[in-house]
Amino acid sequence: MDSASSRLSMRSRLRHAFHAGMALPPGTEPHLAGALRDTLQHPGSMVRAELAYRIASSLGMSDERSENLAIAIEYFHTASLLFDDLPAMDDARVRRGAPCAHQVYGEGAAILAALALINRAYSLVWKSVAGLPAEVQAGSLTYLERHLGIAGLLNGQSQDLHYAGLAPQLREPQSIAMGKTVSLIRLALVLPAMVAQARAEETRLLDRLAVFWGLSYQTLDDLKDVLPSSDVHGKTAARDAFLDRPNLTLTIGIAESFDRVDRLMKLAGRAIARLEKRHVRLAFLREVGVQFKKEIANLSEASLTRAS
Amino acid sequence: MDSASSRLSMRSRLRHAFHAGMALPPGTEPHLAGALRDTLQHPGSMVRAELAYRIASSLGMSDERSENLAIAIEYFHTASLLFDDLPAMDDARVRRGAPCAHQVYGEGAAILAALALINRAYSLVWKSVAGLPAEVQAGSLTYLERHLGIAGLLNGQSQDLHYAGLAPQLREPQSIAMGKTVSLIRLALVLPAMVAQARAEETRLLDRLAVFWGLSYQTLDDLKDVLPSSDVHGKTAARDAFLDRPNLTLTIGIAESFDRVDRLMKLAGRAIARLEKRHVRLAFLREVGVQFKKEIANLSEASLTRAS
Repeated sequence: MDSASSRLSMRSRLRHAFHAGMALPPGTEPHLAGALRDTLQHPGSMVRAELAYRIASSLGMSDERSENLAIAIEYFHTASLLFDDLPAMDDARVRRGAPCAHQVYGEGAAILAALALINRAYSLVWKSVAGLPAEVQAGSLTYLERHLGIAGLLNGQSQDLHYAGLAPQLREPQSIAMGKTVSLIRLALVLPAMVAQARAEETRLLDRLAVFWGLSYQTLDDLKDVLPSSDVHGKTAARDAFLDRPNLTLTIGIAESFDRVDRLMKLAGRAIARLEKRHVRLAFLREVGVQFKKEIANLSEASLTRAS
Repeated sequence: MDSASSRLSMRSRLRHAFHAGMALPPGTEPHLAGALRDTLQHPGSMVRAELAYRIASSLGMSDERSENLAIAIEYFHTASLLFDDLPAMDDARVRRGAPCAHQVYGEGAAILAALALINRAYSLVWKSVAGLPAEVQAGSLTYLERHLGIAGLLNGQSQDLHYAGLAPQLREPQSIAMGKTVSLIRLALVLPAMVAQARAEETRLLDRLAVFWGLSYQTLDDLKDVLPSSDVHGKTAARDAFLDRPNLTLTIGIAESFDRVDRLMKLAGRAIARLEKRHVRLAFLREVGVQFKKEIANLSEASLTRAS
C-alpha cells in the first residue's frame, strides 16, 4: 500500500513526468526553449500534482491517467505563476528560488512558455479522460472550464490585480481567494474524483475540503507575505502592501489570521474523516493536514520570535 | 444548397455565436469584462470561422458541432492577436479599427481576456468532438495540440518576436510563416475535416491547401505592411521594418512577392479542383480563391498608383 518508499518513488516519478511531459522539439526558438527549460527545472513543491495523483489512484484510476491529470494541473498552476510574475501583474523578480523567466528571457518568451504549458495541459487532461463514458468526460471538462476560466481562476487573478480600484464591497480578500487560490486546489482534489467516477457525495466532500484548504493556504501565503521570514520561500516578500493587493492578514491582523487557519483546518479535518470512512485509501489526506499544521507552527514561531 | 442568402445567414449566425459564445458571469472584474466585451464586439473578418464551419458542414457535421468548432478556432485566433499586440510583442495601438484592449484596460486585463478566450475555445473544441469515436477524438485533439503549441503557432510567434537575434540560416520569413500563420489556417481547414471523419486523402489535400493559402496570406500581409494603403486595414502600418520582424516583401521585393502569391494561388487552385472532385460541396473553396485574387488585384493597383 502507501509505504514511505512508494511515496518517495511516486514523488520522483511525478517530478520526472513534470520535466519530461513537455518535450522541446528541435528548432524551438531559443528564448522560448530557455524559458520552458528553466521552468521545467524548477517544479516547486508539486503539492497539487501529488494530491491529484493520489486521489485519482486511491479511487482506482490507472497510473497513466492519474499521472496525466496530475501533471496537467501542475502545468496550469505553473503557467498561472509565469503570468502572475509579469511586470504588468505582480512584477516579481524571483520564483522558486530562481530569477523569473521574464527577467532572463523577456516577457514575450515568458508568455509564450506559459501558453505552451497550457496547451500541453489541456492535451494531458484530454488523455486522462480519453475513452471514458461521454457523461464523465463532459462533467469533468465542464468543471475544468468553470474553475480555470472567467468564473474561477481568471476572475480571481483579475480581482487580485485590480484590487486597488475595486468597489469597497468587493474588497474582500476571502472571496478573491476563492477564485485565485481555491480554483486550482479544487481542480487538484475534485477533478481526479470526477474522472475516477467517484460518487456524488465524495466529490462534494472533496469540493468542501478544497475550499477549506484553499482558504487556509491563501491565509498562510498572506501571513508569509507579512512575516519577516518570508524570503526563505523563494518569493519576493511584502509585495501585497506595496502593490495594494488583497491580503487577509493586513486586513484582520496576524493573530486573527492564525485563528482563521485553525478553524478552517478543523473543518477540513471533519471532511477528511468523512471521506476516510467512505474510502480508507483517502486517509492519506490526513498527512497533508499534518504538513499544514507543521507549517503553521513554524510560521507562528517565526512570528513570536519577531515579536520578542 | 449554398445560396447567397443562406451564406448571409450563416455569416450573421457565426457573428452572433462569436459574441454570445463567451458569456460574462455577473461579478466579472470590470477590466477583464471590458477587455472581453470590446474584443467580442470586434470579430474581424471571421474568415477562419467561416472556412471551418463550411468545411465541417459540407462534410456532414451537424450545425451545432460545426459552429462550436468554428468559434473555437476564431477564439484561438483572437487570443493570439491580443497577445501579439502587447507592448512586449508587437506593441500595437490599433486592432480591427479600435484601440487595442491593453491600451484601454491595461496589459493584465488583455492577458486575462486572451486566456479566457483560450479556455472557452478548448471547451468548444471538446464539445465539437464529444461522443465521437475515441480515435477521431484522439486524432483531432493531437492535431490541435501540435499546431497550436510549441511545434506550431507558439514557435512561429517566438521566431517572429526574436527575429532580430535569430541565426542567419533561421532568418527565413516563409518558414516562420509556417508556424505563425499556416498553423491557424491548418486548424481552420483540416481540423473540421478530421472531426467530420473525412478520408485521409481529403485531409491531406486540405492540409496542402492550408499551406498554400497560409503562405499567400502571410505574403499579402507583408505586402500590406510595406505598401502605403495599409492603414485602411485597421492595423498599424510599416511595423515590420520598424520592429525588425520577418517580412518577405522586405526580403524579396514587391514584384517577386506578387509573383509568389500568384504561384501559391495556382497550387491552391489545383488542390481545390481535386477536393471538388471528391466532394462537390467543397466547391465553395473556389470563392475564397476569388476573394483572395480580388484582394491581390486591389493591392497591386495600390502599389502601381504609388509608383506612378
